Amino acid sequence: MSRAALAERMGVNRSTILALTSELAAVGLVREESPEAALGAGRPSFVVRPETDRVFVLAFDVAVDRLVVARVGLGGTVLDRRETTRPRTGVDLDTVVTGLAELGRELYDAAPPGTVCAGVGASYCGMIRPGDGMVRYGPELGWVDQAFGTELESALGIGLPVAVGNEAHLGAHAEFARGAGIGSPDLIYLHGDVGVGGGILVGGRLLGGESGYGCEVGHMLVNPHDGRECLCGSRGCLEAETGEYALLEAVGRAGEFGREAVRSVVRAAAEGEPTAAAAVAAIGDWLGIGVANLINLFNPGVVVFGGTLRELYAVAAPQVGARIRQHGMPVSRERARLLPSGLGDDATLIGAAEKGFAALLNNPLTQIARTRSAQTTC
Amino acid sequence: MSRAALAERMGVNRSTILALTSELAAVGLVREESPEAALGAGRPSFVVRPETDRVFVLAFDVAVDRLVVARVGLGGTVLDRRETTRPRTGVDLDTVVTGLAELGRELYDAAPPGTVCAGVGASYCGMIRPGDGMVRYGPELGWVDQAFGTELESALGIGLPVAVGNEAHLGAHAEFARGAGIGSPDLIYLHGDVGVGGGILVGGRLLGGESGYGCEVGHMLVNPHDGRECLCGSRGCLEAETGEYALLEAVGRAGEFGREAVRSVVRAAAEGEPTAAAAVAAIGDWLGIGVANLINLFNPGVVVFGGTLRELYAVAAPQVGARIRQHGMPVSRERARLLPSGLGDDATLIGAAEKGFAALLNNPLTQIARTRSAQTTC
Repeated sequence: MSRAALAERMGVNRSTILALTSELAAVGLVREESPEAALGAGRPSFVVRPETDRVFVLAFDVAVDRLVVARVGLGGTVLDRRETTRPRTGVDLDTVVTGLAELGRELYDAAPPGTVCAGVGASYCGMIRPGDGMVRYGPELGWVDQAFGTELESALGIGLPVAVGNEAHLGAHAEFARGAGIGSPDLIYLHGDVGVGGGILVGGRLLGGESGYGCEVGHMLVNPHDGRECLCGSRGCLEAETGEYALLEAVGRAGEFGREAVRSVVRAAAEGEPTAAAAVAAIGDWLGIGVANLINLFNPGVVVFGGTLRELYAVAAPQVGARIRQHGMPVSRERARLLPSGLGDDATLIGAAEKGFAALLNNPLTQIARTRSAQTTC
Repeated sequence: MSRAALAERMGVNRSTILALTSELAAVGLVREESPEAALGAGRPSFVVRPETDRVFVLAFDVAVDRLVVARVGLGGTVLDRRETTRPRTGVDLDTVVTGLAELGRELYDAAPPGTVCAGVGASYCGMIRPGDGMVRYGPELGWVDQAFGTELESALGIGLPVAVGNEAHLGAHAEFARGAGIGSPDLIYLHGDVGVGGGILVGGRLLGGESGYGCEVGHMLVNPHDGRECLCGSRGCLEAETGEYALLEAVGRAGEFGREAVRSVVRAAAEGEPTAAAAVAAIGDWLGIGVANLINLFNPGVVVFGGTLRELYAVAAPQVGARIRQHGMPVSRERARLLPSGLGDDATLIGAAEKGFAALLNNPLTQIARTRSAQTTC
């Protein structure tokens, strides 16, 4: 962005912007480039760019069937990554943390000389206690009150804390900052994996509630009559009716699991295979009820479908749309755009990276000095 | 509150508080009183009180079966009021506005000399466009896009704009400011009349969404299987399953309506009359599903039951509680208190008064000068 555009966006004058960008450039967070030869009249304004290649975070994504670790540059570019499949069940905290720390350390050590790691963020598919990254409840792994954040920090051993967030919460931030929801501060992000997670921004801020556990979209009861069993112990939750188990069981593939299995059913539905098409339509119907309820409650500007719901929504949009027209109040739904994730499978990873960058962005000069000195002593 | 307590609450020193309260006292908004003889040591701090009897707003409440107009003093005290029943259907904008303006003008003219009207607020049982008080949708009266706020302002003719809000939104603000939800900025207020309205505060602010029509709790679909018809045109909405029609029909009194009819059924249920008890229990069950969904989504500190839901919840608490334990996530529900409205039937009226006071509270010195001069010229 040019200095002139920055000044306008922030409502300050050009000399203030010059002073600020010079400070940031001096500590190596941005660089200022003379613009391409301008065709118009007037003195062209310098362009300010983040030092994407020099300032990075480590971002971890603990998803249901894979572990991803990446080096993500300032500005959201994935510079390097490692990915591994994860056994679906019976994985304890120590195994996950050790595996992640190994991959993370590998990326960290492979970072070019002169680069700096400004933070660490992690996305986890469960309920996270704000502040210390404790997993309060992770149904897929069967985790209850596991000290994921502090254990990963200690195993990683690079002198930086690990900021942990729920995958759908981070996906919401990522889509708002860099994806399908840019410019829409009232945003709902729905993330499909085994279940359905939700991240809801109200006026650009994550809906935390009294203790930080808001947004449990997946456990909204949508089918009180003959609801399917849910991992949470209840029945008829949105995620029980629309998640992976419901879809795979409906097409006679109850023993399988994972994104690829879900996607193959959705592809078959798109190609008109009748059993798959019926299964996807039935799930689209339940999903539409959930989205209509959310539209009535939140009057969102955008609803973003991520994870496996990205592909599912593309095929089930007629059912979802019909339910929204049937159950959504006209004035609540008239401004709501329904969109596929702009970041695809990397939404949660990019969200983890943004969480890792948060301390730096809140207080750049102090934080960059602190991280540089921490890493010299490691 | 004493000057010392104010200074602590606002994080400023005592001389700053003295300067501020002196300015407010000079324009007649507060008075400062020497405290009762203090028993403890040290110089006692002056007590600052709002000029409740001298500074008031006109507050209007258009409820389903009654119209209320009141003079409400700064600090939330009802100083004078008029109330009239309202025909249930077929009432056009002009009739309602003329009736309200007449009562309002009567109270305004009867205000003692030396008092000042600082604003006008109105509560309406429908969807209100933010800014101009247009009723976008008022199902009970069959109103669509009726210019309620501007028409009432013009009919009232006292030179002050009318700030209009939805009744449940205003009830939420009132319960947070002066009722059961003091100290709980993550608050859900549920208001029962014909239907069920909701006002949801997230971090102390009303959940507005993209265009100000959030909080449509009553049209959350809870019964997709054999749901009752709803006034909105859909079926199985929370308000269709828990509202007045559902309750009165279940006890064979389908032709009746109004708060008193609802309350007589709830009283009969409390006294053990079997048909009434079964009807209230069934409605408590649906209400519990709705509240459990809201707890999962919002992780509230408090859920307040107002309007006719106040009495209904008192009797149906076992069913509501059972559904919350069944469908609410433990970490989402562990901090949520369920409480009856602290303001009773005046919650929406007090909320309208607070909305009327908002301009004054945002900018007291300018606004009090402006209203005084407007009223001199009326």
